[in-house]
Amino acid sequence: MASSFKRLAPLLNRVLIKKVEVVNKSPAGIILQDTASQENVGEVVEVGPGQFDNNGKVIPVIVKAGDKVLLPDYGGTKVKLNNGEYWLYRDSDILGILHKD
Amino acid sequence: MASSFKRLAPLLNRVLIKKVEVVNKSPAGIILQDTASQENVGEVVEVGPGQFDNNGKVIPVIVKAGDKVLLPDYGGTKVKLNNGEYWLYRDSDILGILHKD
Amino acid sequence: MASSFKRLAPLLNRVLIKKVEVVNKSPAGIILQDTASQENVGEVVEVGPGQFDNNGKVIPVIVKAGDKVLLPDYGGTKVKLNNGEYWLYRDSDILGILHKD
Amino acid sequence: MASSFKRLAPLLNRVLIKKVEVVNKSPAGIILQDTASQENVGEVVEVGPGQFDNNGKVIPVIVKAGDKVLLPDYGGTKVKLNNGEYWLYRDSDILGILHKD
Amino acid sequence: MASSFKRLAPLLNRVLIKKVEVVNKSPAGIILQDTASQENVGEVVEVGPGQFDNNGKVIPVIVKAGDKVLLPDYGGTKVKLNNGEYWLYRDSDILGILHKD
Amino acid sequence: MASSFKRLAPLLNRVLIKKVEVVNKSPAGIILQDTASQENVGEVVEVGPGQFDNNGKVIPVIVKAGDKVLLPDYGGTKVKLNNGEYWLYRDSDILGILHKD
Amino acid sequence: MASSFKRLAPLLNRVLIKKVEVVNKSPAGIILQDTASQENVGEVVEVGPGQFDNNGKVIPVIVKAGDKVLLPDYGGTKVKLNNGEYWLYRDSDILGILHKD
Repeated sequence: MASSFKRLAPLLNRVLIKKVEVVNKSPAGIILQDTASQENVGEVVEVGPGQFDNNGKVIPVIVKAGDKVLLPDYGGTKVKLNNGEYWLYRDSDILGILHKD
Repeated sequence: MASSFKRLAPLLNRVLIKKVEVVNKSPAGIILQDTASQENVGEVVEVGPGQFDNNGKVIPVIVKAGDKVLLPDYGGTKVKLNNGEYWLYRDSDILGILHKD
Repeated sequence: MASSFKRLAPLLNRVLIKKVEVVNKSPAGIILQDTASQENVGEVVEVGPGQFDNNGKVIPVIVKAGDKVLLPDYGGTKVKLNNGEYWLYRDSDILGILHKD
Repeated sequence: MASSFKRLAPLLNRVLIKKVEVVNKSPAGIILQDTASQENVGEVVEVGPGQFDNNGKVIPVIVKAGDKVLLPDYGGTKVKLNNGEYWLYRDSDILGILHKD
Repeated sequence: MASSFKRLAPLLNRVLIKKVEVVNKSPAGIILQDTASQENVGEVVEVGPGQFDNNGKVIPVIVKAGDKVLLPDYGGTKVKLNNGEYWLYRDSDILGILHKD
Repeated sequence: MASSFKRLAPLLNRVLIKKVEVVNKSPAGIILQDTASQENVGEVVEVGPGQFDNNGKVIPVIVKAGDKVLLPDYGGTKVKLNNGEYWLYRDSDILGILHKD
Repeated sequence: MASSFKRLAPLLNRVLIKKVEVVNKSPAGIILQDTASQENVGEVVEVGPGQFDNNGKVIPVIVKAGDKVLLPDYGGTKVKLNNGEYWLYRDSDILGILHKD
């Protein structure tokens, strides 16, 4: 917990993620809260400066703030800031970028 | 699950796969649905930009959209989008490209 | 299984192998089917383009189609195509090339 | 324990951390000592000169004295000096830098 | 088994070994067959072309045909050819070259 | 044990350490022998010439004779010479250099 | 066992060691055979040509014939030649060089 702080700037290739609550509509238009589905979709809030390669050069992070991403089923670190709960992942663990169209 | 999204752009050397339902004909010409055989044949839907080598250069993905591929018996990650179910594999885990002739 | 396909083009340093049924003659000239011995001798059917080295350059596969090879006792992946059963091995796992003379 | 010494200069990419006692206010303004929350927030006291890369060159440490940092839930080494208790972490294990605004 | 073949050309840094039956004389000059001692002494029959280094260059095998070598207590792969039984080892697993004087 | 020898010159990046007996004073000025605390503080007696990097160049050892160092809780090898008992550590396992002021 | 051979030339960075029987004198001058202490002190008999680095260049062995060395408590391979019993170690496993003064 780090709940007296407002912002976390990730280090290396870490990515700060806000998990997305996915809302599904039933065929009749009723909004269904699908709690199971909020586990592995998130929005990138902030990214680290990147990891060092074997020669000490920086490899930039492969996602950017605002990206909607698919997260792995396991892993990540929960972080509590004073404006809510976030998750940290290595960018190499993020599976892909999600699009609505 | 990411079922309110339509498209997933894989990251690094990941490959989005649509599993193929293999239809076999019996010697008498009857179409047999071979459920066991749909497990490890797929069609490549979209590929990531490639993995970084030790010097930070990108190695392009070794399969391309439309390829029919043989998948390993274990591994892969199931992904549910709003138009169906897909699988993610690392390109290095894909065994080979299948051809009808 | 991929039994509705005819050909598998291996990826990276993988090698498609047709296991050889070894036929032994007894001292009296009777042909003995030695079922145990067909496990680890094979003929190379098709090879992949090769593995990437640490600098992203390709290392060609060290066997070629037609080579009779000695396979390790464990490992390999069974592949069923519509013209028979094959095996996939990494070229680095193949022990050596067999010669009749 | 090294409690007759006053200062520890970390080696390589190690970082000496003073854990921060996080004080939370209740909605009514009462100060609550949140003992659980002091585990993984710290202030950087001193950093090592950096780790060697594969070519023997030094990669500088990615945090600096005074940074408030988020620490992983596991790991670190407790160090007792004569002016209090500290923790050592590798800089690559530190999750991110915390900000109040 | 590969007993219908006469010769095995090892791949990479593999070495084909014929185990040596060590014959010891007792103090009285009686020849003693020391079965235990034939396990880890061998003669090199044929060597592979060598292993690739990290840059894709070949490192030649460090023993040559005819060398008497000391083998490790564990490991190696038994190979049956039509003229006898052999063993395969990686050259890096061979402990040293034996000399009578 | 090597108790008939007087000196051990460490190899590679090994460091020969003499564990320090830490003496604490109670608030009343009474000297307290803190046996627990002598486990992980030591003085560097002699260092090796350094480890080889990936290109075969030597990386010098990061501590020097006379340094007071903080040792990890586990590891190290006990060495008995004819003038006392010492410990060997890899320099990369030494946590930091201790200072009295 | 390789007891019909007289000499073993070690390969790569292996080192052939003759274990030293350490003789201790009691305070009264009586010679005590300290059997426990002969386990990890040895004299270097012969060294290999050295290990290859990542670029295929040889790194020479870091001890030489005649060096008295401190050996690790575990590991090594016992070798029986026709003039006695020896041990093989990797040079990187040898802890240091012992000196009488």
